[in-house]
Amino acid sequence: MTSSNILDALDSAQDRHLAELIEWLKIPSVSSDSTRKTETAAAARWVADKLQASGLATETMCTDGHPLVLAETPAISGAPIALVYGHYDVQPAEPLEDWVSGAFEPTIRDGNLYARGATDDKGQVLTHIQSVCDWMATGQPLPLQIKFLIEGEEEVGSGNLERMMPSLRERLACDCVVISDSSQYAKNQPAITYGLRGIATYELKIQGPTQDLHSGSFGGAVMNPAIALCHLLSSMVDDGGRIQIDGYYDDVAPLSDAERAAWAKLPQSDKQFAKEVGVDALFGEAGFTTDERRWGRPTFDINGLTSGHQGEGVKTIIPATASAKISFRLVPHQDPKKLTESLERHIEKHLAVGVRASLKPDHGAPGMAADPESRYAKAAARAIESAFGTAPVMIREGGSIPIVIRFQDVLQCDCLLLGWGLSDDNTHSPNEKFCVQDYYRGIKASAMLWAELGKLNQA
Amino acid sequence: MTSSNILDALDSAQDRHLAELIEWLKIPSVSSDSTRKTETAAAARWVADKLQASGLATETMCTDGHPLVLAETPAISGAPIALVYGHYDVQPAEPLEDWVSGAFEPTIRDGNLYARGATDDKGQVLTHIQSVCDWMATGQPLPLQIKFLIEGEEEVGSGNLERMMPSLRERLACDCVVISDSSQYAKNQPAITYGLRGIATYELKIQGPTQDLHSGSFGGAVMNPAIALCHLLSSMVDDGGRIQIDGYYDDVAPLSDAERAAWAKLPQSDKQFAKEVGVDALFGEAGFTTDERRWGRPTFDINGLTSGHQGEGVKTIIPATASAKISFRLVPHQDPKKLTESLERHIEKHLAVGVRASLKPDHGAPGMAADPESRYAKAAARAIESAFGTAPVMIREGGSIPIVIRFQDVLQCDCLLLGWGLSDDNTHSPNEKFCVQDYYRGIKASAMLWAELGKLNQA
Repeated sequence: MTSSNILDALDSAQDRHLAELIEWLKIPSVSSDSTRKTETAAAARWVADKLQASGLATETMCTDGHPLVLAETPAISGAPIALVYGHYDVQPAEPLEDWVSGAFEPTIRDGNLYARGATDDKGQVLTHIQSVCDWMATGQPLPLQIKFLIEGEEEVGSGNLERMMPSLRERLACDCVVISDSSQYAKNQPAITYGLRGIATYELKIQGPTQDLHSGSFGGAVMNPAIALCHLLSSMVDDGGRIQIDGYYDDVAPLSDAERAAWAKLPQSDKQFAKEVGVDALFGEAGFTTDERRWGRPTFDINGLTSGHQGEGVKTIIPATASAKISFRLVPHQDPKKLTESLERHIEKHLAVGVRASLKPDHGAPGMAADPESRYAKAAARAIESAFGTAPVMIREGGSIPIVIRFQDVLQCDCLLLGWGLSDDNTHSPNEKFCVQDYYRGIKASAMLWAELGKLNQA
Repeated sequence: MTSSNILDALDSAQDRHLAELIEWLKIPSVSSDSTRKTETAAAARWVADKLQASGLATETMCTDGHPLVLAETPAISGAPIALVYGHYDVQPAEPLEDWVSGAFEPTIRDGNLYARGATDDKGQVLTHIQSVCDWMATGQPLPLQIKFLIEGEEEVGSGNLERMMPSLRERLACDCVVISDSSQYAKNQPAITYGLRGIATYELKIQGPTQDLHSGSFGGAVMNPAIALCHLLSSMVDDGGRIQIDGYYDDVAPLSDAERAAWAKLPQSDKQFAKEVGVDALFGEAGFTTDERRWGRPTFDINGLTSGHQGEGVKTIIPATASAKISFRLVPHQDPKKLTESLERHIEKHLAVGVRASLKPDHGAPGMAADPESRYAKAAARAIESAFGTAPVMIREGGSIPIVIRFQDVLQCDCLLLGWGLSDDNTHSPNEKFCVQDYYRGIKASAMLWAELGKLNQA
């Protein structure tokens, strides 16, 4: 079968593709909402039925939460295996009054399909399902085996899948994982994301006196826990955003000249970026561009501060406690466990006299970097270029997707993050949307990807 | 009349003195509680009736809130005038379940009278009322004129009295104000407080991006307002508690060798002090003792911190804003207005790039220092020594009583702070108490004070 045959078939099926996505989007599968359990199960059944009806061996597997949908095309001896990961659950739609059209009443305006889950992730994962099902419908064999793992708890942390991963190792065995749950670099500028930052989060609490003290009677004689906290947090990072914890940069994978050169070519305006987030000026570690700082450099952030009097007016106290939620974004080769140890030493060394500190690690995951020059990445680049008419740029992202790290760990496979969305898709906000043309182009790119990956076998 | 005559009269009236205090304490005059307006007015009437019945010219003056009670003994040409200031309103009694006996059911246990207001301030101000009324009952003239100003809004900030002060200037004209609303230095160690710290309070807010940002996508490229706040607050004070704002110490009145020597003789254990507040070690500006730090040195405290995510778990954001409630305790000659200007310059100089700061001053009052060697202080010391059997120590306090500064400003008078309470009297907590013996000794000391102040005239 030539590529053009399947591409023609996909072209002529666009109305059905759109109708099916709309059907799926009408199901309010909000995984965090216990009153939506039935609907969430219905969304799982919808996709399982679709895969089953197209001839894939399909199973709906129970978990302690929402079910996993597993499906696969026939094994092809000697051919590579691709595993498509996605999710059928969606974020809550609230605040409902901010939606122009109903969150679960998919509506097209200006070439975009508006609905909760349109891009995150029903619309995106459906591109791969459509391409596989339609390919199978042509009667021609796929040039590789494709497995699907569609979960229902991505928006609530993927806890059950993470726990079940080792037991699913053989079932999910593959050469590369394909995930479309992210964004293009910009409108009409597709991207392949080959790296993610890791994360380590903590709660840091400073305990001072047994109870709040009168700042008149005790001020100047008893260490103020909020001051101790500010001094301690300040000691962790300098004015220039450079982290001051001993050894923090030891394992940091340096950015390669090649990727720095590639990123430098991306269309990017610091001025525009600052305007979009509403600040007068950007900021960051000296010697790095904005994209380098966001994607390839480790960071420290304070996510929350709590101490003493927070209401109206004045309460002149030395607060008994002060606490901070803090997080670090890690780059490949940095180990969250090692960071915890360094952080504990740092606190011991820098803590003020007269207060006690406790550090509670929450969760940690290392960063991920795939090879942007791998044969899988190159195959994906060819597929995307032919569908979008533009070669994708190779980028990393600053966020962390712990499940991706788990795929790499457990399945020892490559990982392709192919985002069809746009950064203004409002994925966790009202008026989530997905550009209809990108949905169609995503389906084509997906089909071309199977063709390209299939060729690797023949090489 | 000899001192012994009035002292004998006071001795034989102890049962009545106690019964009257109990009667007054039963009236729940919680000034902050709008449902207690009737009771608060009743407490004003009780004291006005007592003064009126004893022959003082008495007036209950309306304010926008709770009334002022004004009373005075006859003017004596050429004799000094003392103004007794106190308050009939009390703090809320909540949490009620923590009281061993009812907050408004005065009960004696172990020589202490337990009730809300026992020491703050009904019990203490009543010592002066009893001494004056009983002196007048002897038929002998007082050796000076005594005025009373008993207000009902001390626990809610004295706002109405402050505003009315200039219009009351002539009415309240006096040589010295006498206030008993504080504590002895320790059990059986009375004290005269001749200095108070001033105060300046602010809310400092840092504004970053328009809304909370994803710390993965933006971390490292956009200044984190909570980090900017920590850096800024840290820059205001060093590890040793020394304030780093330009010019902050310029106007600070140094401690005299005499008062440092006097304070050094006070029985004081840093270890015991640390244990009482529940910290491992005390802390403070190098080169000063704990009492010097608390009473005679200016300080900086963070009273509250607020930013980003404060609930359970993790939210990996760059918060849009971060804010702090901060306060400075000032010593004599420091000007709150000048501090505001220095602070604004400091913020401008130290604020991180990419965020904006706003500083909102709340309230400010300068510190107060009276002359511990004044003839009024010496007269008070003689009176206290004769009533308590121990010479009072001369101390300052770290807290701020703005109304005292207003008295000094508007009335241009000396000020005697004579505390009969103890530091563990739970003045703003459940189980407030007043040692019954100290009530009786306070009444005697008050009578002796009138005798001693009267002698000044004759000198």
